[in-house]
Amino acid sequence: MTRTPTRAVPPEQSAREEELIARVQASFDSCRDPRLKELMRALVKHLHAFLREVRLTEEEWHKAIEFLTAVGHITDDKRQEFILLSDTLGASMQTIAINNEVCGNATEATVFGPFFVEGSPRIEPGGDMSFGAAGEPCWVEGTVSDIDGNPVPGARIEVWEADEDGFYDVQYGDGRVAARAHLFSEADGGYRFWGVTPTPYPIPCDGPVGKMLEATGRSPMRASHLHFMVEAPGCRTLVTHIFVRGDELLGSDTVFGVKESLVKDFERRPPGTPTPDGRVVDGTWTKVRFDIVLAPADVRE
Amino acid sequence: MTRTPTRAVPPEQSAREEELIARVQASFDSCRDPRLKELMRALVKHLHAFLREVRLTEEEWHKAIEFLTAVGHITDDKRQEFILLSDTLGASMQTIAINNEVCGNATEATVFGPFFVEGSPRIEPGGDMSFGAAGEPCWVEGTVSDIDGNPVPGARIEVWEADEDGFYDVQYGDGRVAARAHLFSEADGGYRFWGVTPTPYPIPCDGPVGKMLEATGRSPMRASHLHFMVEAPGCRTLVTHIFVRGDELLGSDTVFGVKESLVKDFERRPPGTPTPDGRVVDGTWTKVRFDIVLAPADVRE
Repeated sequence: MTRTPTRAVPPEQSAREEELIARVQASFDSCRDPRLKELMRALVKHLHAFLREVRLTEEEWHKAIEFLTAVGHITDDKRQEFILLSDTLGASMQTIAINNEVCGNATEATVFGPFFVEGSPRIEPGGDMSFGAAGEPCWVEGTVSDIDGNPVPGARIEVWEADEDGFYDVQYGDGRVAARAHLFSEADGGYRFWGVTPTPYPIPCDGPVGKMLEATGRSPMRASHLHFMVEAPGCRTLVTHIFVRGDELLGSDTVFGVKESLVKDFERRPPGTPTPDGRVVDGTWTKVRFDIVLAPADVRE
Repeated sequence: MTRTPTRAVPPEQSAREEELIARVQASFDSCRDPRLKELMRALVKHLHAFLREVRLTEEEWHKAIEFLTAVGHITDDKRQEFILLSDTLGASMQTIAINNEVCGNATEATVFGPFFVEGSPRIEPGGDMSFGAAGEPCWVEGTVSDIDGNPVPGARIEVWEADEDGFYDVQYGDGRVAARAHLFSEADGGYRFWGVTPTPYPIPCDGPVGKMLEATGRSPMRASHLHFMVEAPGCRTLVTHIFVRGDELLGSDTVFGVKESLVKDFERRPPGTPTPDGRVVDGTWTKVRFDIVLAPADVRE
C-alpha cells in the first residue's frame, strides 16, 4: 500500500467532511432507543475520525470491504472469525476491562475465548480435570475470597485448558471430554485439583485474521494459560486465566489477555517427588497457587 | 438495550484501559509496511476510543458480533451488504470526500453505488440511453469543461439510472440492458441525451442493514438521481449524480449522497411541447441542464 504523503487539509475541505459527519449523526435523531442512538452516533463519530485521520484511499476502502467479506464468509457455527478479529485488535479485552472495573484487590478478568463448553463434568476437591488429556501433571490450589478477605465457600469454579499439543477437547473431533471440569470451593474457601501444565498454541490462522497477523508481522501465538470462570452468589462472575511465569510469549499474547497479576509460578518438581495428595507421578509435575478474590456483584450483573 | 447511567471512570481504571491500547498499538511495531502500520494503529486508537466512550457492555459486544456475522452471511457475489453498511454509515461518502478534495469550481463527487456495469452501449449525441426502460422522458444537456473554463471535448460520459419503478436493468433478472449508456462530449465540450426522469427507490432492506435502519428510525430510501461517471485525459475521474430539486427525500437520502451543488431543476413540459431535437412526445417530458467541471488529475489518480 502506498499513498500521497500527508498534507494539510484545506479548511473548505475540512468543513465539507465535518458537515457530512453532522448529517450522518443527525440521521439517527429519530431513533427511539436512547442507548442505540448513543451507540450509533458515537460509532459514526469514531469511524469518520479514523477515515479522516488516515485519509483512507478508495483502494484501501475496497480492500477493507474485501477483508470484512472474507471474515464473514469463513465464519460459521464452528468458527467465529469476527470474534478472532475483535480479539486480535484488543477490542474483546477492552470490552472486558470496561465491564470488570478495578475493584479493590479483586482478581483481574481476561478474555473468555471460544473453547468454553457448558455442562463440564464435576470433580471433587483434589480430583483430576485432565480426563486423560496429554500433558505434564499440574497441581493447582488456592482459595476463593471476597475483597474483604472473607472465604467464599461453595463458589463454582469452571476450569478448562488445551492439552500439551495445544488442542482443546472440542478440537479432537471425536466428542471426547478432556481437560475441562467444574468443582466447588470448600468451607474455608479452598480448592485444589489436578490438570496439565499449560503450553502455548496458535489461534486459527488459516483465515483472513491470520493473513492480517502475518501481513503486520504479528505472531498468532497465545501465551500458555489455564482458564477459570468463578461464580458465587453476591459476587461478580470472574472470567480469567492464569499464565505461566517465564513463558516467552507473555509479552506478545496475540489476544492481549496477559495481565501481570495473572502470571503465576508453576514450580516444576523432579520425578518421584511426593505430590500434595500422596500420588506417585512417573515424570516431572508442576504446582501452582492461585488465590481468587471476587468483586461484589454490581448493577450490571 | 439498557445500561447503567454513565459515571466517571476512576483514574486507575482509565490507566488500565490506556495501557491496553498502548499494548495493542505496539503489537504492530514490527509491521514492515509503513502505511499498513499507520492504518492498524489508527484503527486500534479509534476503535478503542469508541468502546471506552460508550462503555460498551458485553451483551452489546455480542450483538455487534452477531450483526457483523449476519452482514457477512447475506453478502455474496450479487449482494454486498458491507458496502451497504458503509454507505448507510456515511463511510463511503466520507471516503469519496477525502479522495475528491475541493478543487476550485470542480463538480462535486458522490457515491458510486452498486449498479454500474462495464461495457454499456455507446449512444451518439442526442441519443436515447433508456433503451425502453419505463419512465417519463428526460432531456439532459450540458458541457464538460476544466476548472479554467476550457471545454473538454472527447470526455467519456457514462450514465446510468433506475426506471420509474425504481429498478436498474441488472435487477430485471432477464439480462436486458436498459437505462445505461456512454457517450462522448463534442468539440465544444457539449453533450446531450435522452433518459428518464429519476424517481426514488429503497436500498435493499431485507437484510441486517435494513434492520439497522428500521431499529434506528431511518428511511431506506434514496433520493431520485441520475448517475454520471466522466473520464478525460489529464482530469480527475468524476463519479457523481444529479438530484431532482423538490424531491422530498433530498434531506434524508439514506447513503448521504446529496450535495446542494448537485441538485438540478428538472423542468417539466406539457404533452405536445416541442422537444429540443424536434421529437413529438405523447406525455410530459422533463429537461435538465448539468454543466460538468473536471478537476485536474492529481497524483492519486
